[in-house]
Amino acid sequence: MENFIFQNPTKLVFGKGMIAKLSRLIPADRRVMITFGGGSVRRNGVYDEVCKALAGRDTVEFWGIEPNPSIETLRKAIALGKEKRVDFLLAVGGGSVIDGTKLISAGLLYDGDAWDLVLKGSETHAVPFGTVLTIPATGSEMNNGAVISRHETKEKYPFYSNYPRFSVLDPEKTFTLPERQVACGIADTFVHVMEQYMTVPGVSRVMDRWAEGILQTLVEIAPKIRANRQDYDLMADFMLSATMGLNGFVALGVPQDWATHMIGHELTALHGLTHGATLAIVLPGTLRVLREQKGAKLLQYGERVWGITAGSREERIDCAIARTEEFFRSLGLSTRLPEEGIGAGTIAEVERRFNERGVHFGEAGNVDGAMARRILEACM
Amino acid sequence: MENFIFQNPTKLVFGKGMIAKLSRLIPADRRVMITFGGGSVRRNGVYDEVCKALAGRDTVEFWGIEPNPSIETLRKAIALGKEKRVDFLLAVGGGSVIDGTKLISAGLLYDGDAWDLVLKGSETHAVPFGTVLTIPATGSEMNNGAVISRHETKEKYPFYSNYPRFSVLDPEKTFTLPERQVACGIADTFVHVMEQYMTVPGVSRVMDRWAEGILQTLVEIAPKIRANRQDYDLMADFMLSATMGLNGFVALGVPQDWATHMIGHELTALHGLTHGATLAIVLPGTLRVLREQKGAKLLQYGERVWGITAGSREERIDCAIARTEEFFRSLGLSTRLPEEGIGAGTIAEVERRFNERGVHFGEAGNVDGAMARRILEACM
Repeated sequence: MENFIFQNPTKLVFGKGMIAKLSRLIPADRRVMITFGGGSVRRNGVYDEVCKALAGRDTVEFWGIEPNPSIETLRKAIALGKEKRVDFLLAVGGGSVIDGTKLISAGLLYDGDAWDLVLKGSETHAVPFGTVLTIPATGSEMNNGAVISRHETKEKYPFYSNYPRFSVLDPEKTFTLPERQVACGIADTFVHVMEQYMTVPGVSRVMDRWAEGILQTLVEIAPKIRANRQDYDLMADFMLSATMGLNGFVALGVPQDWATHMIGHELTALHGLTHGATLAIVLPGTLRVLREQKGAKLLQYGERVWGITAGSREERIDCAIARTEEFFRSLGLSTRLPEEGIGAGTIAEVERRFNERGVHFGEAGNVDGAMARRILEACM
Repeated sequence: MENFIFQNPTKLVFGKGMIAKLSRLIPADRRVMITFGGGSVRRNGVYDEVCKALAGRDTVEFWGIEPNPSIETLRKAIALGKEKRVDFLLAVGGGSVIDGTKLISAGLLYDGDAWDLVLKGSETHAVPFGTVLTIPATGSEMNNGAVISRHETKEKYPFYSNYPRFSVLDPEKTFTLPERQVACGIADTFVHVMEQYMTVPGVSRVMDRWAEGILQTLVEIAPKIRANRQDYDLMADFMLSATMGLNGFVALGVPQDWATHMIGHELTALHGLTHGATLAIVLPGTLRVLREQKGAKLLQYGERVWGITAGSREERIDCAIARTEEFFRSLGLSTRLPEEGIGAGTIAEVERRFNERGVHFGEAGNVDGAMARRILEACM
């Protein structure tokens, strides 16, 4: 096991009716800016419950944080928050609203342009914030990471700030999510776990089991959710899986990869493709290209998650990768680039960008521009 | 899934050489009382590393917190800490030293006798503390619970205070633990997880998988550890399992039991038997008596942890309980009361105490005095 330091201070407030707890979770003397995405929270009852919980409080609302939150939008939120002198933020929405709010929280205490903070990569001098999660997917509700886009240059970078003080998760509020958003959330959660798991086996037996436990849960619940997105226990399991998939709990003392994510971010930046949808395409390609490097773990994964025990080593690895791709397809997602109208031009651009930045991603640091090309070509 | 609120702020500092981090983990301006058990930390290098990390600091030492820490000893520590006006505590040892330090931390800010706090059950007005763990077992290094004994009346009660600010876990420091202490630690961890798992199946699919993941890990590593207690990765897996087994991570949104623990505590209070050793005896008895109530979960446990798939329902349940008892025996522990010289007199006394206190323990609230008698009789 590798040495590690772990701390996750977020208070998780989970279950039916828990939005009402906001009145106690946010100190009464705070001036709160509530951040939202589009209008879906007006239709699913979340907005009304938040307003009721914070009735009489000193609040200001900022609407319109878009999927893949952009610096262009977040600058406006920061300006409003500075003008209103807010000292607490409440993000109400999915991962994009929460990610954007993390940059706002730091931007409020920064005098320059918040894009500086994104390029710097991290900033923890920030106003405190909490969240009300409406879309299980990114895990942003219980970690300190965010991904921020810049439309004018089609760039998308990770940014790290503080953990949410609290996050309220009510599975009932996911009942109105569209099928595709649920599918992308399941894929996102699955790949988050794979990024922390699909390296070498046995570095931590417990972490291997916990990662497999989330993957097994997703495999078990995905078809049931596809049949019924209004089953409380199913959606609660999905929501908890998404949070546990990226809050550090399955990453204690183990190597991580994240190459699939870094390639996927480029597809989102260049084509606007939803994050989870990019991962469903890229991950099988990553596994196909790096099947030797990840062979021992692919065998363990195949056996424990998919029950693959028959056949030669190579056949079992083939089968594990195939089952992974089939799983994403069973969610209704594309798993090949041409299905999304993406081709050689994009592959060349991703290679160029990786080379220009001189990056070496992945557990072994061997995913550079050339390797990204090979991976994307394996997704054709 | 049940509604829940979860927060665990402890910083986990895990790995080789991590004791050196103490110099940064404890604020420089604090007057620190370091609490110890017996002298084992002088022999395994822990004491020297702690002293080196805190060289030049304003510290006072308190030695002699015994297994099953007693109010009699802890009163002395509180008196010393008050006299020296300490404002930070560092517990260096196993679960007993950490448990005792939790009461000291609250007792330092309380004017009366600290036993009042134990009878009250909880007190969070307390000086901050950190820990250096030397014995994987209780999970006290990453939770807010403690168990405090009173020798003069042979009583033993749970007490809740704050979470450690940090806990340093260096698996190398477990290499000198005696075989029996390791065996009791494995049993303790196993039963902690069972208390949070062995109720009804499927309340949370993820939590079920995570609990099973720790149990599977313990089953896998126990015989290897018995063959070699100086293997770093094995002891790291054990150490991490013990912490993860009782820090709330496997208890999110699920019912819990804890009847085995409450009965076990009485055996320790009355006979001084080591905590983990009491659990190895009581758990199989609990499962035998409550096999119908816990039947569905016993079947899932049997299949997922022990691979039991053949036979009738009753045969599979029999087998799951038998494998559990065999596991404890494989650790070298007793699993029947007479092996420890405990008989009818003790059973009657436990029944009398439970009745006197009017308790109803367990997931279903049905473990009262009469049920405790049945469970203990099933351990004869």
